[in-house]
Amino acid sequence: MSQLFQLAKTCPGTLARAGTLTTPHGAVQTPFFMPVGSQGTVKTMTPDEMRALGVGMVLANTYHLSLRPGIELMSKMGGLHRFMSWHGPILTDSGGFQVFSLGHLRDVNDDGVIFRSHIDGSEHFISPELAIKMQEQLGADIIMAFDECPPYGDDFHHIRRAMERTNLWAERCLRYHKREDQVLFGIVQGGTFSELRQQSASFITSLNFPGYAVGGLSLGEPKDVTYSTLEESVSLLPKDKPRYLMGVGSPEDLVECVARGVDMFDSALPTRLARNGAIFSENRRVNIGNARFKEEARPIDPKCDCYTCRHFSAAYLHHLFRCQELLAYRLATIHNLRFITRLMEQIRRSILDDSFDSFKEAFLQNYQPTDAETRAEQKRKWLESRKARGLPDLEDQ
Amino acid sequence: MSQLFQLAKTCPGTLARAGTLTTPHGAVQTPFFMPVGSQGTVKTMTPDEMRALGVGMVLANTYHLSLRPGIELMSKMGGLHRFMSWHGPILTDSGGFQVFSLGHLRDVNDDGVIFRSHIDGSEHFISPELAIKMQEQLGADIIMAFDECPPYGDDFHHIRRAMERTNLWAERCLRYHKREDQVLFGIVQGGTFSELRQQSASFITSLNFPGYAVGGLSLGEPKDVTYSTLEESVSLLPKDKPRYLMGVGSPEDLVECVARGVDMFDSALPTRLARNGAIFSENRRVNIGNARFKEEARPIDPKCDCYTCRHFSAAYLHHLFRCQELLAYRLATIHNLRFITRLMEQIRRSILDDSFDSFKEAFLQNYQPTDAETRAEQKRKWLESRKARGLPDLEDQ
Repeated sequence: MSQLFQLAKTCPGTLARAGTLTTPHGAVQTPFFMPVGSQGTVKTMTPDEMRALGVGMVLANTYHLSLRPGIELMSKMGGLHRFMSWHGPILTDSGGFQVFSLGHLRDVNDDGVIFRSHIDGSEHFISPELAIKMQEQLGADIIMAFDECPPYGDDFHHIRRAMERTNLWAERCLRYHKREDQVLFGIVQGGTFSELRQQSASFITSLNFPGYAVGGLSLGEPKDVTYSTLEESVSLLPKDKPRYLMGVGSPEDLVECVARGVDMFDSALPTRLARNGAIFSENRRVNIGNARFKEEARPIDPKCDCYTCRHFSAAYLHHLFRCQELLAYRLATIHNLRFITRLMEQIRRSILDDSFDSFKEAFLQNYQPTDAETRAEQKRKWLESRKARGLPDLEDQ
Repeated sequence: MSQLFQLAKTCPGTLARAGTLTTPHGAVQTPFFMPVGSQGTVKTMTPDEMRALGVGMVLANTYHLSLRPGIELMSKMGGLHRFMSWHGPILTDSGGFQVFSLGHLRDVNDDGVIFRSHIDGSEHFISPELAIKMQEQLGADIIMAFDECPPYGDDFHHIRRAMERTNLWAERCLRYHKREDQVLFGIVQGGTFSELRQQSASFITSLNFPGYAVGGLSLGEPKDVTYSTLEESVSLLPKDKPRYLMGVGSPEDLVECVARGVDMFDSALPTRLARNGAIFSENRRVNIGNARFKEEARPIDPKCDCYTCRHFSAAYLHHLFRCQELLAYRLATIHNLRFITRLMEQIRRSILDDSFDSFKEAFLQNYQPTDAETRAEQKRKWLESRKARGLPDLEDQ
């Protein structure tokens, strides 16, 4: 197999870097963002559309796919690439994050986790070995170690316990993993405690994974804490291997975290926001349901090159959302994903031509991040809508 | 303006005919089927996709668009073509059918109809003149006279009264209509009463419309009654003008009604069925939720040339429906619409090369129509799901 990761350039003023990640299903230019396709579909989108948007790699979810349609079936169907007809690279999450977000529905010890399905309450068991076995059957290009991801706000003792278990499980994952056409990434945990992040990174990197993820961030902590914890974690990772920050996807975070040395991101945020009518525009997030769009003949973002903005007025999108037309969710998803993939393309280009510093400064000056209150309100609305549909608060949907 | 309708061929053994309908937004080969885009969108689909499927003309709905986003706004936005970014031909229904399906929400006299919006209960008035005015503002290529469409089962007296009012209104529509880049079709009513169909056709054709629709069918009457009433109505229409059968869209009905001389069809059936998981396959309609599709690695219809069948297994579609993934409704809609447009292409080709008779025979022998019981059950489920979402029983959604 050719070399997994090749660095092309590092920004002189920040830790930003541009490179190439090569997988059996093709190469992806870094840094990049992965849309989330939990159940084997990036909601509303076809594989062809994702390619056209510039999506390089997609994330899918072992937890969800193991419950529906089931891993055995996926295996019979020739694996995940073929099942979802996405022939580019795929990364699967191990299922750890979802299992731990089930709250009272699970019971954990060093062997693994007993949990109840959020769909029908049926009891399941997952262990590091089973997480790897399932991911081998799914056949993603990059798979993740099974980790324990405690919620933000847990005390030092609990976070340390979870980190130690994550370390133990990382070894077992590495030992169990056989399939040679996929690579297994380790995950640094440790919450927001500097001491624990150091212990975690020290241990996980000693296992010599081909790539490393930073987990346990973007769980509700303040943004400056996200950034400082990330900085510390990344400083402990080897320079020659890819770094993946899990669960991050707001425009300002992508720019800030690339500047801190991250190569890969995933988040359900851009697609979830889209389905709720929250649309990225040139300088901030806007709500398409707002009355000021009712008669807006221009597109949401006149400079945007996406299908939605090239064909439809903001007034049309406003109308579709008001009528709860299914096309609304598609057109908004196309726009938000294109906004993010274009941002990543701009970031990479600026790293390559030594202008990332000024790109970052200009972007952050121009782009108004959504305030904490609006973000909380958006999240509340989303959780309510899930509740109304009888769905659990799984963070990745 | 070039000639609206040119006949290319008439089947020697049946009344089937092939021709060309020319509009300011392009020509369409007849016979053809129009998908329904009530609210300015064929549910789940982009205009580009519809073109790729072979859709020539789309139907939109004056009633729906007048309530949301409102006709004034549509006019400000440059008309319906521009608003929905569909630059091919459009036909708008007058709103009559919807208003009359509101049941107790409306009050009718010779002036017009006072009705309450199914959305917010607000009171509105529509008359023949207003229906035409609104359709002029929407700017469709073909617009329809405002008619009274009583339900199947009404007695002779009521159906006659509605037909007389439809006649009166047809004259007023014709008198009021000014816009020269659109054509106005008249509608033959009269329920299933031979005497009334004759009176209606005799009067409506005397007004010399550029095209004629047969309305008031496919409202729940037995299929043989649909066919015989259609036969009688069509026999009273001029041969040199296009004939449009409103609300018909099942595969067997399309074949049967082309054979009876119809050039144009519309129905929400193929798209509505798709969203409910009822998929046309080579020889019958199947329910993708059926357990036998759980492990089916082949597409729903291995011979189908649609995007869905060329990329995805039936098992994947089954999975998406089970998870209520939005992509499910898209992929099923693509398939069902392609099934229908391909059927219309086959029909036309067979008329042109004098093989329609045998095509029809082979198709009807091979294709198993859905039985009345399953159709009733499907309709019940659909109405229930609308009720659950707080929506009225509007037939065209």
